[in-house]
Parts: sequence; C-alpha cells; structure tokens
Amino acid sequence: MPANARTLTLNLFLNHAGHHEAAWRHPSTQPDALFTPDYYVRLARRAEAAKLDAVFFADGPVLHGGVEHNAVGGLEPLLTLATIAAHTERIGLIATASTTYYEPYNLARLFATLDHLSGGRAGWNVVTTSSAAAGANFGLDAHPDPEVRYARAEEFLEATTRLWDSWEADAVLVDRAAGRYADPSRIHPAAFAGEHLSVAGPFNAARTPQGRPVLVQAGASNTGREFAARWAEAIFTAHQRIEDAQAFYADIKSRALDLGRDPEQVKILPGISPFLGSTEAEARALEEELNELSVPAYGLQQLSGQAGVDLSGLDLDAPVPLEIFAGAGDVTDNARSRFQVVAGIVQRERPTLRRLLHRLAGARGHRVVAGTPEQVADTIEDWFVAGAADGFNVMPPALPAGLDAFVDHVVPILQARGLFRTEYVGTTLRDHLGLDVPENRYTAARAADGAGRPALAQA
Amino acid sequence: MPANARTLTLNLFLNHAGHHEAAWRHPSTQPDALFTPDYYVRLARRAEAAKLDAVFFADGPVLHGGVEHNAVGGLEPLLTLATIAAHTERIGLIATASTTYYEPYNLARLFATLDHLSGGRAGWNVVTTSSAAAGANFGLDAHPDPEVRYARAEEFLEATTRLWDSWEADAVLVDRAAGRYADPSRIHPAAFAGEHLSVAGPFNAARTPQGRPVLVQAGASNTGREFAARWAEAIFTAHQRIEDAQAFYADIKSRALDLGRDPEQVKILPGISPFLGSTEAEARALEEELNELSVPAYGLQQLSGQAGVDLSGLDLDAPVPLEIFAGAGDVTDNARSRFQVVAGIVQRERPTLRRLLHRLAGARGHRVVAGTPEQVADTIEDWFVAGAADGFNVMPPALPAGLDAFVDHVVPILQARGLFRTEYVGTTLRDHLGLDVPENRYTAARAADGAGRPALAQA
Ligand SMILES: Cc1cc2nc3c(=O)[nH]c(=O)nc-3n(C[C@H](O)[C@H](O)[C@H](O)COP(=O)(O)O)c2cc1C
Ligand SMILES: Cc1cc2nc3c(=O)[nH]c(=O)nc-3n(C[C@H](O)[C@H](O)[C@H](O)COP(=O)(O)O)c2cc1C
Repeated sequence: MPANARTLTLNLFLNHAGHHEAAWRHPSTQPDALFTPDYYVRLARRAEAAKLDAVFFADGPVLHGGVEHNAVGGLEPLLTLATIAAHTERIGLIATASTTYYEPYNLARLFATLDHLSGGRAGWNVVTTSSAAAGANFGLDAHPDPEVRYARAEEFLEATTRLWDSWEADAVLVDRAAGRYADPSRIHPAAFAGEHLSVAGPFNAARTPQGRPVLVQAGASNTGREFAARWAEAIFTAHQRIEDAQAFYADIKSRALDLGRDPEQVKILPGISPFLGSTEAEARALEEELNELSVPAYGLQQLSGQAGVDLSGLDLDAPVPLEIFAGAGDVTDNARSRFQVVAGIVQRERPTLRRLLHRLAGARGHRVVAGTPEQVADTIEDWFVAGAADGFNVMPPALPAGLDAFVDHVVPILQARGLFRTEYVGTTLRDHLGLDVPENRYTAARAADGAGRPALAQA
Repeated sequence: MPANARTLTLNLFLNHAGHHEAAWRHPSTQPDALFTPDYYVRLARRAEAAKLDAVFFADGPVLHGGVEHNAVGGLEPLLTLATIAAHTERIGLIATASTTYYEPYNLARLFATLDHLSGGRAGWNVVTTSSAAAGANFGLDAHPDPEVRYARAEEFLEATTRLWDSWEADAVLVDRAAGRYADPSRIHPAAFAGEHLSVAGPFNAARTPQGRPVLVQAGASNTGREFAARWAEAIFTAHQRIEDAQAFYADIKSRALDLGRDPEQVKILPGISPFLGSTEAEARALEEELNELSVPAYGLQQLSGQAGVDLSGLDLDAPVPLEIFAGAGDVTDNARSRFQVVAGIVQRERPTLRRLLHRLAGARGHRVVAGTPEQVADTIEDWFVAGAADGFNVMPPALPAGLDAFVDHVVPILQARGLFRTEYVGTTLRDHLGLDVPENRYTAARAADGAGRPALAQA
C-alpha cells in the first residue's frame, strides 16, 4: 500500500443468521446456533483472518417485534465480544449500548474491562436507543423524546470519559518495598453533576490500553449529527445513493472541523450488504431467492411501525401510495432518519408494496449491492475515492456464506488494488482505524500547568 | 464416593493478588497482572483441574478506600467470567452484582448471556451493595437504607426471574418451511410493576441452559437472611467459630423450610482462608510473613470505616478499647454483620490493635486457618459433618501459590476421604451443586391448567 494512501476500514456487522430478514430460512444458515458462542467465534475468526478492522453488534434492551417470523432477540453484545476476544488476537470489538437505559458507572466499567481483556480492541457504538418500546422495560411511562435522550447522552459521554481518565497512566506504582500500590494524587474523582445524571467517581479500574474505547455513533438527525461531530471517532450510516452519502460525509467532516477537531479522526462508515455471485445474474438470483423467503407479514409489521400507519390492508402488488411516505417529518422522531431513506426509495422508484418490502428485506435501508466480486469492489472503491465513505460496515445477507464470499473474493481484490491491508500493522482498534489515543485530561492539565512554571519552582 | 454421601462444595473466591491485604507485596504474587485476562484464566483452569465447583468474584460499583496501600479496583466480574468461560469447560462462574445499582432488564440479559455462553455455568451473587459510597456514583444523595435496598432487591428478583421465564423452553421453533421462527404464545411479557421498579418485558433472549443462573446471596442481617431463605440457592457467609456457623446454618435451613422450600436446595458456604505449610509452624510463619507486610495505615482505615470511629490515634500495641466495638448495633447498617464478627473477636480475645489488624488482614473477618493440609482438611470435614457448612468459599491468602497449595495438597485428601468429587458428574453449575433446574412458571401454569381438564377438551 503506498504510504500516502488513505486506509479503507471494513467492519463485519454481525446480525443473527444474517442481515436479510429471511436469512434464518435459507438452508445455508445456522439459526439453531444463535445462542451458542462457537457461532460468533467462528465468524469473528474468519473476519480476523481477512484482516478486517472490527466486528460489530447492534443492540437494544427490548424484544423487537416480529419474533414469530424472524430470529430477533439474541445474546448481549459485550459478553459475546469478551468471548470473541478470548478467541482472537487483533480484530476490533464494537458493541452497541444505550446512554438512555444504562448508568454511566456500570457501562464505563464494562467497556473498560473489555478494553483491558482484549488488549485495547474495544469500541462503543453510542446510541440513545431507537426502539420506543424500551422505556417500559425500565419503569418509564414513555421513551424520552430525542432531544432529552441526546441531552442525557452528552452528559453520559462527559461522565464516562471522566471515569476513563480517572486513573492516569502512571497511577499504578506497585512499589512493594514502600508498600504503595498506587499514587492517590494520580487518581481523580469524576466529579460530574449534570441535569440528567451525576457521578462522583473515582473510577475503580486502571487506565485501559486505548485510554478509552473507540467512540462510534449512528445517529443521523441534526441533533444526532451534532452529537457525532463532537464525540464520534467513527460513524455508522445508511445511504442508498452515493450523492446522499457524499453530502452526509461532507456535512459531518465540516461539523467536526467547526468544533476544532481533525476531520480525519472521524471515520464515516456506511452499511453495505453484498450479494455475491460469479456473475451478476447469479448474485441477483441469490437476492431473489432470499426475498422470496421473506414473510410479508413480517416486513409489513416493520414498515407499519416505521410509517406509523397500519399497512396490513394494502394490496401487495399495487404501487405504494405516495402519501404514506410523504410526511417524513411527522413520524416518531427516533426512526426518522431511516424513515427518510425509505421515503426516498418510494419517491424515486414508485415500487409496489411487495417490491418495497423486498428492497428493505435485505438490510433495512442500507445499501444492497448484488454483483460479482469485481462489481462489489468497484462500488466500495468508488464510494471511498469519491468522498462518500472512509470504509464500510459489511452486512452479509446470510451467514456464514455471505461472509465467506466477501472475504474470499472481495477482500483480495481490494488488497490487490492497494486499498486494504494485507496484514495488521498495530494491535489495537485505534491502530487499525488510524485513530489517536486520547490524552488523559488530568495528565494534560498538569503538563500545561508545569510548562507554565519555571522547573525549579516545582522541585 | 458412597451414593448417599452429601457432596462437599468448594468454590474458588478470586480476589486481586490474594485475600490477604498484603498479598500484593509478597514476592510470590503477580500484582502487575491484575488487569490481564491470562492471570484469571490460569487460576480458573487450575481450579477446574481440581474439579472445584465454581470461581467467584465479589464486586461493588465504587473504588474502595485504601488504593494507596492495596490493590483495590479491578476488572468487571461478568466480562472476566465470560473470558474464563471461553477457556474452561466445566467450572461454574459466579459474579456478584447489585440490585441497588443495576436495572433488572440489563442485568437479566448479562446473566442469561453468560449462562448461554458457558453452557449453563452462571451464578449470580445477589448483593444490595455494602459500600455506602456507591450511591454518589449513581446520582443519589445517599446510599438507600438496608430496608429499602432489600425491598428493591425483592422486586428485582421477581422481575429478573420473570424475564428468565419469559421464553418457555419450546418457544423457539426454527420452522423454516412454515416461516415460523418462534411461537409467540410461548413468549410472555414480564408484566411486573412494583414500588421500586417495573418491567414490561418480554425478554429478548431464549431460555438459558440452567433456566436461570444459580442464585447466591451473602447478607447476614435478619432481613438479609429472610431474603436468602426465600431466593438463595447458595449462601456465602463469614464465621470465626464452628458454633456460630452451626447456628447460622440451622437458622437458614429452618427459615427455608418455613417458606416451603427443601433445605437441601440451599447450600451454606462459609469462607475459609487457608495458610498451608508442611508443618503447622511453617504455615504460621507464612501467615506471620504476610501480616508483617501489611501497612497499618491501610488496616486502620478499613477498621475505622467499619467502626464508624477514627482509630488512627490509638496505640498499636495497647489492647483495643472494648467500648469501640460495644455498640455493634449503632454502626452503619450495611456493614453490621461483618462488624459483629469483629466485635466478637475483640470481646473474646482482647487483642492489641496491631494483633486485631493482623487477625483481619487475612480475610476481613472470614475464618483463617494455618496448618498442614491434613489439618485444613480436618477443619473442612469437621464443619461439613457437624452441620456448619455444605462447603466452602476458598479464599487463598496469596495467588497463585495459595491456590496451588490447596488444590495440590488439600483437595486430594478430601477426595481420598470420599468427601469431594474426583470427576465432574454433570456439566452445569446446578449439576455440580446438586441444585434443581427451576420450573418455568408459564409452562408449569399451563401444565396445571391442562391437568385439570379432560384431555379431549384440549384437542
Ligand atoms: C449501522 C447502524 C446501526 C445502528 N444500530 C443501532 C442499535 O444497535 N441500536 C439502536 O438503538 N439504534 C441503532 N441505530 C440507530 C441510531 O442509533 C439512531 O437511533 C437512528 O439512526 C436515528 O438517528 P437520529 O435519532 O439521530 O435521527 C443504528 C443506526 C445505524 C446506521
Ligand atoms: C463471602 C461474601 C462476599 C460478599 N461479597 C460482597 C460483594 O461482592 N459486594 C457487596 O456489596 N457485598 C458483599 N458482601 C456483603 C453482603 O452482601 C452484605 O452486604 C453483608 O454481608 C451485610 O449483610 P446485611 O446487610 O444483610 O447485614 C459479601 C459478603 C460475604 C459473606
């Protein structure tokens, strides 16, 4: 790879039997193995062998609707990633967790521990939880409004980053002779008191290999973008068209710059769900095969939820009425950005309801590409080169076959073109993504303080 | 082992560099490894090779006082146990977690996932959190009173056990042909609304191998015992003398019986911290060596906290004034049961302050035994036979040497005497402890319902 080349990021987004909603019905998948560790370990090792940056799990503290016809529900991501960490050496480990439904002290400990256990491979996909049903699992009458959720998220990040800085890198002395395990002057209270939460601190674990987990984010509303531009080091996003992705990319990078950040320290990673075949026709046939396996009642339930309208009475073979997707601003706020993606498809393509369900069955609004390995590699390169993406969240439609096809056939092409690594260069997720290790605020403050005084005065 | 023999339980209680407060200063320990997975994995594998029932981690969401002079703070137990699960096959995995500072939906998921990932080896040591400083890490002005904490704990157990029952064992169909992944009539909402918390449910994971984690408890107050008698399947406890342990044992078993439970389904497990030597003198010398390494300022800080009085001005070599430990009922409630153990030592032994600090340095009030492997095995057998214990939480004073000595020298004696297994019989923690798999309440209700009706009426 030329020294001046930008490095493409490729994460494996793991989702049950695969990202297509009918994956579990396909004979190649393993829906009986979804609660067993070996299933995930095998997939992660496959991704690691291909030198992918990270594996990623979505999450929500709720049973999503539709369990009758789809493999929803599953294992908790942090513990699953700890298991994967024990069976891998290099690949990054990104878990989704909610700032709305967790306490910062507990979550800070979980991620710090994952970072310690994995030797610096932890990442946190920060979400405010998209499913409104979650509130009732936590004693709330209603899921809080997006503005309230993001306000709490801001405080949550402030609190957790203080906890992760609580122990400076040199806090642990292990001075057996003097009987001093740690230097208390290097361990700081979090001392955070906000409107939504407060944490006294100090933290109860030593500074982690990465200082803190890589902060990932996946919100797309205006508030979500502002939050991302302030905190995120990588952003997951869903786009159908390169021009939308370019606009999003430019917007986030310029917001980050406005906030005084280096835009290169914010990686934009759209989702891509590749159907692969040795010919384009073969790939399309595979897509069609999975689409035919989807249960319309399932897709209708998902879409009705997004639209805020019961669509179950509509004719599957008539065009989707435009009105239903006209008021993209009126629907429940938490799903609005993905809803806009759907509205865009309806307006541009005027599909039948069945066709729309099939379009969404693949990856719920993420870009689906069916083609040869060359064609998929071309799409990835095009988006990467055109300033639409710094890399991708790869969403195999069916597992393990969709992952095998991607790593066996697409990754080698990207490597041959000099776009993707052939060996890991570093050991941490920050190394893979080219992200800086964040400075410890207390160490930095003391350094600034020390620089301002004559050296002798300190002695 | 004769078929009618009770089975002795032996857990390995892992604590930093060892249970003695000065363990980290001893040249045999590895205080630099406390944030690395290999350290814990190696210890757990050693315990598994000796066929121990489980490894156990204590926990609290707070940095305990005294980090200057002791290795306090550490990794989060659930993730650490997931790592251990990945490197072991049979040994049980018990994590402490707080009902005061967690949300039931989150914690139910973590334990269910650990049970799935480990093939049925998870246990939960249910605590209401003993450290009052924790409240300030969760936005509370004060740590709630014990009665409030236990009232919340009752609701927490009701909510989490409902979540664990939410999916009946036959809920997952994976019927590819019919497009039915699960049977929604076999997935139930938690529908729990209490004074302190509520959870709508349903849960988002399938029923686990053990149905639910083994429920362990460690409270000793009257309220704590009542809670334990209702919920606990194993109870950790601290006793200095066999007669106190017998009284506790009889009390818990009769409380369980009064609540309609089988007393054999409640295992009583006192802590024991064994110093081992080839002669008793050698064992005592090792204990003395560790005592001499303790930093008096550390022990004084711990004891002052327990007594609610600043003891730092007292003469280390004068007898402890009886008054200080007279009012065992007046101190902060959450530490009262352990405080009573300390008061008992002071009243019976009239030690100097230095001697008392040494008595507590070993295992903070748990029984410390220094002797030959035969002597330690005798103590274990005596307590087991005399109805003082169903087994023990083994607390090596220094790691790994204290564990190695125990498994190499004491376990074989217990095996030779027919008191301890030489091979695992089952695969789950419930199997090891001889505990029943709890019935699913919904399945049971339907069975009862069905039994009441003529079979034809159901068809
Ligand atoms: C790749 C990707 C993964 C996501 N994963 C989750 C998730 O696991 N849990 C969740 O609650 N939301 C998830 N989201 C949704 C976002 O967190 C966010 O709620 C949604 O994009 C709406 O953003 P907005 O509220 O800023 O409009 C994900 C979004 C994307 C693009
Ligand atoms: C072996 C053992 C381990 C314990 N571990 C913890 C722990 O990890 N975290 C905690 O908060 N309390 C722990 N405790 C304390 C108990 O949960 C409880 O708070 C204490 O025994 C006082 O009980 P009471 O409140 O019923 O009087 C432990 C107690 C014992 C005996």
